[in-house]
Amino acid sequence: MGNEDSYVALGLKAWKAQIDRADKLFGTLSSEEVLREIAPGRNRLLYLWGHLTAIHDAMLPLLGLRERLHPELDVAFVSNPDKSRADIPSHVEVRQAWNNVNDELSRGFARMSWPDWLQRHSAVSAEDFAKDTSRNRFAILLSRTNHLSYHLGQAVLGRK
Amino acid sequence: MGNEDSYVALGLKAWKAQIDRADKLFGTLSSEEVLREIAPGRNRLLYLWGHLTAIHDAMLPLLGLRERLHPELDVAFVSNPDKSRADIPSHVEVRQAWNNVNDELSRGFARMSWPDWLQRHSAVSAEDFAKDTSRNRFAILLSRTNHLSYHLGQAVLGRK
Repeated sequence: MGNEDSYVALGLKAWKAQIDRADKLFGTLSSEEVLREIAPGRNRLLYLWGHLTAIHDAMLPLLGLRERLHPELDVAFVSNPDKSRADIPSHVEVRQAWNNVNDELSRGFARMSWPDWLQRHSAVSAEDFAKDTSRNRFAILLSRTNHLSYHLGQAVLGRK
Repeated sequence: MGNEDSYVALGLKAWKAQIDRADKLFGTLSSEEVLREIAPGRNRLLYLWGHLTAIHDAMLPLLGLRERLHPELDVAFVSNPDKSRADIPSHVEVRQAWNNVNDELSRGFARMSWPDWLQRHSAVSAEDFAKDTSRNRFAILLSRTNHLSYHLGQAVLGRK
């Protein structure tokens, strides 16, 4: 394994560690528990879970892997705050989407070799990337891992 | 810049982004605000700030940079839960320590080249490292960046 592969493996290991924590935290909640707020008047656990699922789903095209699986999640969990809409996806739907999206990412990561990770992500133009090559796919992996950690720190407050 | 340097630069950029968020969030609090709980009955902002400072301080020897600057923080912010002791460091002391520690880390990072980051960290033996080379300094950087994000997600709940 070359040195570049070592860095990629470390980034993927950090991602996987946070995904495993999220699986344990959200995956064991009942349909009543998932509607609990993380603190009085704050987001519900289901909202955080759906939000993370939507953001991870958007990583699929961002990393050049494929089109999104669940773009319909954005209206409930990204563009609008929690408790602003009555018709949000159910506990079962969010759990299913969470699993689908992370499995698909995992399969995509397995197909990527280290030079792929240093390529531009799809939200930056070739011209802008030429000026700043740090706007690449590995940067997306690190920032989304931190985004997951950020919301896990909140979600843990909503457990019994 | 070689490819290995690119990965290290991305890891450091992610660290710096979270440090900047923490500087903004904690650095602008008054001495009253810093005693606010993130949610009823939960940790106070000062506790989270002191906790992060202690964990970052411990990175100095872990990364082979130098001995700790503020080992005295552990009793108040790591080994014991919040509100279990009357005599914890003050707002001014924590702010000073936070700045000292992160400045020292920043100087240390500037002296490290990519092969240093793939060396074992000081909490793993040479024998164990030979069996699992992922227990290196870059892994510490990524995991401490996620640890910072995790508590930032909580700290943001304590703002007005």
